[in-house]
Amino acid sequence: MSDLPKKIWINEEGPREGFQIEANPIALKRKAELIEALAETGLKQIDCVSFVNPKRVPGMADADELAAAIRKKPGVRYTGLWLNQQGLERAYNSQLDIIGAIRVTASESFSVNNTNKNIQQTLDEQRAWLKSYAEHDVPVEWGYVMTAFGCNYEGYMPIPQVVRMVGEVLDLADEADVQLNGVYLADTVGWANPLMMEKTIGAVREKWPDLPLALHLHDTRGTGLANVYAALKLGVAKFDSSCAGLGGCPFAGHRGAAGNICTEDLVFMCEEMGIETGVDLDALIKVAHLAEDIFGRQLPGKVMHGGSLNRYKKT
Amino acid sequence: MSDLPKKIWINEEGPREGFQIEANPIALKRKAELIEALAETGLKQIDCVSFVNPKRVPGMADADELAAAIRKKPGVRYTGLWLNQQGLERAYNSQLDIIGAIRVTASESFSVNNTNKNIQQTLDEQRAWLKSYAEHDVPVEWGYVMTAFGCNYEGYMPIPQVVRMVGEVLDLADEADVQLNGVYLADTVGWANPLMMEKTIGAVREKWPDLPLALHLHDTRGTGLANVYAALKLGVAKFDSSCAGLGGCPFAGHRGAAGNICTEDLVFMCEEMGIETGVDLDALIKVAHLAEDIFGRQLPGKVMHGGSLNRYKKT
Repeated sequence: MSDLPKKIWINEEGPREGFQIEANPIALKRKAELIEALAETGLKQIDCVSFVNPKRVPGMADADELAAAIRKKPGVRYTGLWLNQQGLERAYNSQLDIIGAIRVTASESFSVNNTNKNIQQTLDEQRAWLKSYAEHDVPVEWGYVMTAFGCNYEGYMPIPQVVRMVGEVLDLADEADVQLNGVYLADTVGWANPLMMEKTIGAVREKWPDLPLALHLHDTRGTGLANVYAALKLGVAKFDSSCAGLGGCPFAGHRGAAGNICTEDLVFMCEEMGIETGVDLDALIKVAHLAEDIFGRQLPGKVMHGGSLNRYKKT
Repeated sequence: MSDLPKKIWINEEGPREGFQIEANPIALKRKAELIEALAETGLKQIDCVSFVNPKRVPGMADADELAAAIRKKPGVRYTGLWLNQQGLERAYNSQLDIIGAIRVTASESFSVNNTNKNIQQTLDEQRAWLKSYAEHDVPVEWGYVMTAFGCNYEGYMPIPQVVRMVGEVLDLADEADVQLNGVYLADTVGWANPLMMEKTIGAVREKWPDLPLALHLHDTRGTGLANVYAALKLGVAKFDSSCAGLGGCPFAGHRGAAGNICTEDLVFMCEEMGIETGVDLDALIKVAHLAEDIFGRQLPGKVMHGGSLNRYKKT
């Protein structure tokens, strides 16, 4: 039981994940309101926008304006995502905290279907971007292996392929003389289960025992927090999550896919087990209710509806 | 990893948990339809009704009629719940598979508030019921410790109190010369986290190493399947759960409490990890959609909306 980490780091993805999948338009002012409210809860990094093609992702058509509108709180980083050179240029021209990454996809078919690039072409693109990051003095912090547990095109991801892709990420970092913080394994479309989590993390650890791992998990099939628990037991201490469970993958190839694991639920589970998150849970629950108001429908977070336990605790 | 059980046993609680909390009336015919559909999925035990005061639980006013209406499938057990002598008599007079249990509550305040009996009075009542079960040739299979992880009146349940209550259950069984299958720990209002699960199960195991344990879990705060995973790793192999995540505790003392852990999500997680459940997941997902139709609103199950992975698997 002493193998749980003392503290975890949460990267809030709710705004980007939520806005990009939303069919109904949301006023820019309200988007900024949500981001600014999240920044008051103790979250230190908030992913705000995708600089993507507005024809493919209408909910992100106002990405540049939104990025400009956010009133930034000191000590909080406001990040964005890009999927091509054009998006990267838009990111450079924004006031956001531009943080480079090395992003690869373990599934060749998912890569081709969602980015029009196969794995080799993605590696070449990442190489070019690493040069660009260096020229723009942009820090490069984490590598990402997308679809690390499976995808709807290829099924389960063979673990040797995940290990190979982690190796590709590390090689790219070496080539570019970049010292990564670690590598994210992303369950992009919700294929992971806790046992697979243990096996995959175990295989990566066997090859790189000291490499910090992080997780980006979708709760498509309800196993999200069980996957987190399996990973916590293996010392994983960094997670992406999404306030109120906002979002989902717009390219997942099937409808109804749930969003990322829910930030309040993650914070609740960790704090209850004595793991610090740096987040004020009751404040975050209020923001989750604000998100329901902004999105105009019930959102899937559990703690936001069940309530935290703080009010019942003896003082 | 080899410590996961090979097979689990699921007790379906969706009809009882769902009907009893529902504010809107549901036609008896549709209630029976749901129960009969569940029986076709491989589930072997379905909790159908509560024989309770219709003034307190209007959704159960038709319990006797519903129990009489169900077309029973051979090999499936259809059970009911009672909270007092009057309810027990109604159960005896039904065509349901009446299975006795020993039910105690770890929290004195919860017990008093929800049953008007303190722990000692509950033990006396259980003693009387055990006599009645013997007289009626009713099998007694499991003991239950309710609020085994905490409640809204007393906060976290001290582990020694849980151990004490398990002991009371076993003493009652001994007194009545009943051989229990084991003891359920019930997270009646959703206070458990995976670490607490390990500590509580560990403490009970320390005293009774060979006593089989089962879990009744509510997903009030999103940790339900993480709690299951922690318990599976400790060899727990019997769970209550609820199709589509139906239900909640009508007496929980706060609104918005989520229902039991969701049966499809439980089946999905277990089958994905190679643990047999005996349930046809895709058939159960169809029943979960039937439940949405019957209840007339979106229900919280995840796999029912995200879909199983079976359609993506290579044959």
